Amino acid sequence: MTIFALTADQSNTVLSIAEGVDCDDGYSRENPFYNQTRQYGERSGPLRIGLIRSDQLAFFGDEGYANAYSDTLKILREDASIEFEELDFAPFVEAAKLLYEGPWVTERYLATQPLIDDSPEVMFPVVRGIIEPGKDALASDLFTAQYRLQELKQECDAILDRFDCLLTPTAGRFFTVDELLEEPVLRNSQLGHYTNFMNLLDMSGLALPTVFTQQGLPFGVTLVAPAFGDRRLLSIAKRFETMFDLPLGALGESRESLPVNPVASPKHIDVLVCGAHLKGLPLNWQLTERGATLKECTQTASVYRMYALAGGPPFRPGLVLDEQQGAAIDVEIWRVPSEHFGSFVAGIPAPLGIGKVRLQDGSYVSGFICEPYGLEGSKEITQLGGWRAYLKELAS
Amino acid sequence: MTIFALTADQSNTVLSIAEGVDCDDGYSRENPFYNQTRQYGERSGPLRIGLIRSDQLAFFGDEGYANAYSDTLKILREDASIEFEELDFAPFVEAAKLLYEGPWVTERYLATQPLIDDSPEVMFPVVRGIIEPGKDALASDLFTAQYRLQELKQECDAILDRFDCLLTPTAGRFFTVDELLEEPVLRNSQLGHYTNFMNLLDMSGLALPTVFTQQGLPFGVTLVAPAFGDRRLLSIAKRFETMFDLPLGALGESRESLPVNPVASPKHIDVLVCGAHLKGLPLNWQLTERGATLKECTQTASVYRMYALAGGPPFRPGLVLDEQQGAAIDVEIWRVPSEHFGSFVAGIPAPLGIGKVRLQDGSYVSGFICEPYGLEGSKEITQLGGWRAYLKELAS
Repeated sequence: MTIFALTADQSNTVLSIAEGVDCDDGYSRENPFYNQTRQYGERSGPLRIGLIRSDQLAFFGDEGYANAYSDTLKILREDASIEFEELDFAPFVEAAKLLYEGPWVTERYLATQPLIDDSPEVMFPVVRGIIEPGKDALASDLFTAQYRLQELKQECDAILDRFDCLLTPTAGRFFTVDELLEEPVLRNSQLGHYTNFMNLLDMSGLALPTVFTQQGLPFGVTLVAPAFGDRRLLSIAKRFETMFDLPLGALGESRESLPVNPVASPKHIDVLVCGAHLKGLPLNWQLTERGATLKECTQTASVYRMYALAGGPPFRPGLVLDEQQGAAIDVEIWRVPSEHFGSFVAGIPAPLGIGKVRLQDGSYVSGFICEPYGLEGSKEITQLGGWRAYLKELAS
Repeated sequence: MTIFALTADQSNTVLSIAEGVDCDDGYSRENPFYNQTRQYGERSGPLRIGLIRSDQLAFFGDEGYANAYSDTLKILREDASIEFEELDFAPFVEAAKLLYEGPWVTERYLATQPLIDDSPEVMFPVVRGIIEPGKDALASDLFTAQYRLQELKQECDAILDRFDCLLTPTAGRFFTVDELLEEPVLRNSQLGHYTNFMNLLDMSGLALPTVFTQQGLPFGVTLVAPAFGDRRLLSIAKRFETMFDLPLGALGESRESLPVNPVASPKHIDVLVCGAHLKGLPLNWQLTERGATLKECTQTASVYRMYALAGGPPFRPGLVLDEQQGAAIDVEIWRVPSEHFGSFVAGIPAPLGIGKVRLQDGSYVSGFICEPYGLEGSKEITQLGGWRAYLKELAS
């Protein structure tokens, strides 16, 4: 489905109306929670954006577009919180080529049956010339191409996983009608160079205008993410819109931005641990087996008292906020894949739970909290500054 | 991948060694956390099992097998915590037929190339007769069949979603070698009646022996779940093993069961809410938009004091355990899809968090807890017995 709109706000509204599961369509899927309307907003904080490796960029001889791409990046680089890194675009290009050069053309044949079987003469000859071979393509070629596509998809997904999104030119150049009529298949394939991989690889894309070329032609970039990345891309586009000084279409409408909540990355949830879940300690597997990685060894704000709770093993600490008599406590922050954080929380026995813990800079992160009654029979260890120091003292 | 073993314990061990992502295989997938070795154990608590509708069962004339199936169910029904419900098996059977009667035979052709192209005479003629047509199958037939398969998969997934697993006879009957040689294709298709849908529908299956027929033939059933249901099925099988009085293979080995932890259903996490998340209240969307459903309106154990916290809107309560002066508090329990529970927890601001709350029967469920400092400036409302009563009092 494609939405044409003047702003990210408008696209989000149209998408909210158009989206939803169609139970009569076997390919229809539930929109996951992280991609629902409420997840649309200004994408705050640092961004990590993938760019096509310079030697893999293609502008098909159009220097104006090449310069417009550079200009776009120059403007985006003014925001120091956006980090750019080049990636290998080759597997995306190989997937793109499968669309018209591989057996997927057969899907177009099926979509135009019985028209193309019964009245082929009514079709535009160029289009018919592309679609007709789809009738005779072999199942063995399709399976072979699907196997290859699956390999490419695995590769491309792994690449995208390192970024908030991929940013490409939307088109390498524009062509005049005469140029298109002259070599329709080649020109179409060039026009789709940065887009033809999207459907085959099950990805979502968002194109937005950024600058005009010196020749006065419109230029824009496309943001790419895996399927159901729509709200993430819309949120990034909303942030980008303010960075480019562009009119809203040709009618000079004024830009009125809807107020939205800042939205963070939905892929991971950071969790602060301070006891048996620390790296190397007995419950750390509950993080590592969920695919969590250690993000940072740090300290809380200087407002916590720490207690060694009664009972065990495993022996467990309790953090209690105390603005007056608290101290900074050694902790670790782990990045847990969002979809597995829930089972982690559900597995924590009373009196502990997951709430919010304050860091030195005043920000809060999900972390272990302790119910008041859980402190009965416990021993205060705040003065040791952390759980590892306490374990060391126990062992000595 | 198929594992043959004497017990669920052994299967789990072999699977633990054999499993893992193969980055050189485009179809290889990460084993999700809920299917890892540690999730194997005795499947405790109630089970909801899907059975094939009686009129859709096929035993191909074998009364001994029909009786053995009834005997198996009779034994399983002795466990009152197992609930059975009949389901429509037709879409599974239609998918099964696609395996040999549809263009997937072409995958077998590709797997046997170049042998079947260059030296067809070395292949067993019956096998060659099945595979050879795969060479000429059309891509258009394959796409058409894949579309249909996708519809069937959506239907079958929705059916399975209502159950812990589907239980079928493993085979409708056994055939003698003479019978197989006489009509190899038909007999093979009958043997695969209850299994041929599995790979095409991306499901996991576990076959276990249950009883002998009156004629002394072995009979067994197959448990079916979506892909990555392995540990769930193994855990259910471990529970079933103790219900059938069977020798361990022909060599009379003794059954030694490994100690394991009880394992519950990993699909949903129940969460107890007591304030603004109650049905109809301002934050309830945080549950419903995650696909959560109301499981129960109930009360806590009589050990909680309830406070209306300072600040707001939204106005929020805090539950604090107090064995001496506590009371039973009105609460709701919502079933949240596991993969979305993490983002729910991460969105809860201090001083609240998710820990464990005790119910009347002494069991604990995930639910809202409150840090001690959060009670500053709050008002005790325990005597009202719940948040709705407090809102009513506020409004009056």
